[in-house]
Amino acid sequence: MDKYCFGVDIGGTGIKIGLFDREGNMLDKRVFATRRTENGKDVLKDAADFIEKIRKEKGLDREQILGVGVGLPGPVNDRGYVSEMANLGLGGFNIEEEMSSMTGLKVKAGNDANVAALGEQWKGKGKGFDNMVLVTLGTGVGGGVIHKGRIVAGSVGAGGEIGHILVNYDEKEACGCGKYGCLEQYASATGIARLARQALEKNSKDSLLADKEDINAKLVFDYAKQGDELALEIVDEACRYLGIALAGVAQVMDPQAFVIGGGVSKAGDILISHIKKHYIPNVMNALKDKEFLIASLGNDAGIYGCARLILN
Amino acid sequence: MDKYCFGVDIGGTGIKIGLFDREGNMLDKRVFATRRTENGKDVLKDAADFIEKIRKEKGLDREQILGVGVGLPGPVNDRGYVSEMANLGLGGFNIEEEMSSMTGLKVKAGNDANVAALGEQWKGKGKGFDNMVLVTLGTGVGGGVIHKGRIVAGSVGAGGEIGHILVNYDEKEACGCGKYGCLEQYASATGIARLARQALEKNSKDSLLADKEDINAKLVFDYAKQGDELALEIVDEACRYLGIALAGVAQVMDPQAFVIGGGVSKAGDILISHIKKHYIPNVMNALKDKEFLIASLGNDAGIYGCARLILN
Repeated sequence: MDKYCFGVDIGGTGIKIGLFDREGNMLDKRVFATRRTENGKDVLKDAADFIEKIRKEKGLDREQILGVGVGLPGPVNDRGYVSEMANLGLGGFNIEEEMSSMTGLKVKAGNDANVAALGEQWKGKGKGFDNMVLVTLGTGVGGGVIHKGRIVAGSVGAGGEIGHILVNYDEKEACGCGKYGCLEQYASATGIARLARQALEKNSKDSLLADKEDINAKLVFDYAKQGDELALEIVDEACRYLGIALAGVAQVMDPQAFVIGGGVSKAGDILISHIKKHYIPNVMNALKDKEFLIASLGNDAGIYGCARLILN
Repeated sequence: MDKYCFGVDIGGTGIKIGLFDREGNMLDKRVFATRRTENGKDVLKDAADFIEKIRKEKGLDREQILGVGVGLPGPVNDRGYVSEMANLGLGGFNIEEEMSSMTGLKVKAGNDANVAALGEQWKGKGKGFDNMVLVTLGTGVGGGVIHKGRIVAGSVGAGGEIGHILVNYDEKEACGCGKYGCLEQYASATGIARLARQALEKNSKDSLLADKEDINAKLVFDYAKQGDELALEIVDEACRYLGIALAGVAQVMDPQAFVIGGGVSKAGDILISHIKKHYIPNVMNALKDKEFLIASLGNDAGIYGCARLILN
């Protein structure tokens, strides 16, 4: 009898569910809207119902399902305890126990950025690297650390929260987390746009960015690729903070590879080369020679990683 | 038949060997001089001979020895490969294979700071914390990261090299490692003495330190405890860098506890309170509540950790 598992990535706007075979091939993928009414109180039940719906549609017995891997936006420790969920009011419960009793299936859970790291390590660009770090550059900066093929969840589930490493001692504006000078303030899509606005206030240098109303990270990278001096300076500044932060990560974990994901990573080579430019001078000799790669699974990294929580 | 193991801490000046029973009780401890002639080419053979000598003296059969754990001053990856040894010219060999063929015993090895971390986690102040970080403040700043009770050696054996995290972007003097602005330049005994000399050049403020010829870290802490304003500023500066670096470590690993060892840690509470003062504002809310403890095994942490490599 063939065996399967589900990967379920619960986000603030959508619940993405993948059905995987034993070897980790994705057979089906669905996205459902997240019901955010009453602080998202129905989110877990909805996810359980969607799983049941897909299982029945596919004609699978419950015995054929090895388990359900779940990713959540918030700290999840390695026993499944969720302290809080970003953008949803839920928190203070054990997701593995709750969803297991709802579905009658084995459930394993992890933080969304951490399961994405596991996904990239298993089926994406991190393949072959037992020790690797995923950095996602999106609206914020997320991260996941994989050590010996497993997620480093940490004692309260905040392992891999690379976006909130202090990188600028002089910052006057607060980060979303309440601290000052976090990597996320410079290397996220939002952060890069902010750096651009600040740079333009000081000096527009006949930049292509000067007459743009809606400056975003993509535009900054596009103009940098065209040789726009100011855009290049902004890219370099964002990557300086990234290089320094990843140098610190390397001093702690000594991974084989850094995989860069999220929307900003679409910039590609220019991003990698500028990160390496600032990474290399800021790590010990033994750590200089690391792989820097662009992630390959996109938004599916999470459901792959969720499946991996079961298929390991 | 009772079983035993050896913990062997190889340093630039001494080879310390402990004999342990199965439960990790240290039954005997010896220190031999490290023969540094010809780049320390005889160090491994000497260590093997000392082990054999102790084994025979104790009347133990080779079959009673579960194995030998070895700690070395240099990067050791988790397969026993040693790229270089500090203060000795050796490098580029597999310590586990070499010493195993010399002794006829099972050999496991690790970096000296990493095995010290494992020792503190097993029998010292890290007891009960599966995820913990040891920071040793001595001539340099060393570190070891323990995740789920095991050393994070990293891909080239440079895991836990916390002393070389960049903490000061404005440093003009090079660290021993060749980089600029490493934690070690401010938080080691040498680094604290340097901060003191720099502070005195700028402003002696009627400090007790002003008329001292040989300023060292102990003196700085002693005077800080007596309320000397300048000494307190120096302590605070060293601990600011420590707090910031450990905040970065926490964002990556989310350990339960930080254990502070090495000569400087004898300063005790004043050190802990100043580190926490700078750690807390620089980590995410979820990470603020960590234990900060002074190590308890002193120079024996290494041999305990070496024994633990065998007795796990």
